[in-house]
Amino acid sequence: MSDLPTHVHIMEVGPRDGLQMEARHLATADKVALVEHLADAGLTEIEVGSFVNPARVPQMANTEEVFAALPRRPGVAYRALWLNRRGLERAVATGVDLTAKLSMAASDTFSRKNVGRSVEETLAAMPEWLAIYAEEGLRDVSLSIMTTFGCTYEGYVPETRTVELIGRVIALLDEHGFRLAEADLADTTGWANPLYVQRVIGAVRDRWPDLKIKLHLHDTRGCGIANALAGLEMGVDRFDASIGGLGGCPFAGLKGAAGNIATEDFAFLCAEMGLATGLDLDRLTEAARFAEEKVGRPLPGKVFRAGHVHPGAA
Amino acid sequence: MSDLPTHVHIMEVGPRDGLQMEARHLATADKVALVEHLADAGLTEIEVGSFVNPARVPQMANTEEVFAALPRRPGVAYRALWLNRRGLERAVATGVDLTAKLSMAASDTFSRKNVGRSVEETLAAMPEWLAIYAEEGLRDVSLSIMTTFGCTYEGYVPETRTVELIGRVIALLDEHGFRLAEADLADTTGWANPLYVQRVIGAVRDRWPDLKIKLHLHDTRGCGIANALAGLEMGVDRFDASIGGLGGCPFAGLKGAAGNIATEDFAFLCAEMGLATGLDLDRLTEAARFAEEKVGRPLPGKVFRAGHVHPGAA
Repeated sequence: MSDLPTHVHIMEVGPRDGLQMEARHLATADKVALVEHLADAGLTEIEVGSFVNPARVPQMANTEEVFAALPRRPGVAYRALWLNRRGLERAVATGVDLTAKLSMAASDTFSRKNVGRSVEETLAAMPEWLAIYAEEGLRDVSLSIMTTFGCTYEGYVPETRTVELIGRVIALLDEHGFRLAEADLADTTGWANPLYVQRVIGAVRDRWPDLKIKLHLHDTRGCGIANALAGLEMGVDRFDASIGGLGGCPFAGLKGAAGNIATEDFAFLCAEMGLATGLDLDRLTEAARFAEEKVGRPLPGKVFRAGHVHPGAA
Repeated sequence: MSDLPTHVHIMEVGPRDGLQMEARHLATADKVALVEHLADAGLTEIEVGSFVNPARVPQMANTEEVFAALPRRPGVAYRALWLNRRGLERAVATGVDLTAKLSMAASDTFSRKNVGRSVEETLAAMPEWLAIYAEEGLRDVSLSIMTTFGCTYEGYVPETRTVELIGRVIALLDEHGFRLAEADLADTTGWANPLYVQRVIGAVRDRWPDLKIKLHLHDTRGCGIANALAGLEMGVDRFDASIGGLGGCPFAGLKGAAGNIATEDFAFLCAEMGLATGLDLDRLTEAARFAEEKVGRPLPGKVFRAGHVHPGAA
């Protein structure tokens, strides 16, 4: 495990990717309190909500209100998700901490079901997003690829597909004067396995050795933390996770499936392996308990229930 | 991951290590049906129960009855656990598929709380067990070391302790004309992490390069499958697991903690990585659903809920 990073950055996606799946819709005040708990724990990048169709994702209908009520702390970036130009315009108007983000899916079927557009249509719409980013003075783009490792509809996605899509986006960005700063590889419906994670990362690195890679992993089939380990072993130092393991994917055709890897479990893994995250496991435990109480169902995270303190530790 | 094994043997411990934790005590007929489901799924080694004090572990009080009612299949070994000479004598009388097994803990505090004896007392009692094994014609011994990686009372256990204990047992076996065939390293209360798993295995291998190692991992803090991956990467090809992730440890001072790694999740990981287990994931799913119904609480295993079939697969 010689390529392990020394520092690991975790972006918290629980309030967005997590809560969008929950039967119980959190009130604005509870969402704000959850985000505050997360910031207390040391998380410096928190996805607060999404600007998507409230008819399809009613859990996110109050994202504007959450941002309006949220005290901003220096050193914490409050992010949001959008899937089309209208969503991006709402995000800009709401004053989220904007990054130039392009989002697409590797699986065409998933893309059609998730955002109602094919992959080609998504690519064709990207220049519209770039126009807005240019207005905001953003030139470094992160590309998020949902279903990078496979999907419930099409099965495995070959790594050549990921390389092809990244290549096309890089060409598009070049053409418009932007730069690809990061590729976020998302295992949206939990099809990754450790060997495949390393194979896809290897294929991307072979082509673009300096491109930063982030992993967004779901624990749908119990491989989430093992897949994260496989990423760490390749030197990946940026991950998404959700507090308590909140979430799942409403459009993945999976009922009762687990959500993202749990923030506190992944932070515990990193701590035990000597990798710095800057996170306070006690505070993460409090945040997970708060999330569990508010969603009103047992969350799958393990550390917040079992504890993390070593006997005899100072 | 060049040292990955091509075949992985999984011993099912759900009916023992799993059910001993459950609030609902399974009737003999239900235990027999569960073991039959597990054999249907292709498991060839199943720990059916334990011969321990029924006042302390009432869930295992019917182990004799379960063995009496269980149809034996050729090619399937029906195992049991014992922790002292009295238990071993009951196992012999019951006709379990016996292996010469010595069991101890690395943590002295855990040892006293779990079996009421210190580590030294456990070592001192081993010749009595060996006498019985000699009568049964068994000369190849497997040594199980509970809390190899640490425990809830003492924290981390250093790898030098594991090497020391194995060395002492080997000396004892030599003296009595036995051979150490396997070391079962058990993360009884979930203190392992992937680096530490590899460090301990490395330390044991440095001293005894040909000694077979088995891993018994709990998912107490969410690292179970990642720790198993770390073992696979070191070429370890023998693991314990429990169907649905049944279980925990009643004497570990942890309430609500997760149990063993789930058989179906670990088998899925192996299958996805191209490692043969001989197991049928559909049948494992049926067994996990049966176990969940009988224990009457949601089990933590993921694959039996989310499914494992790849779209488009034959």
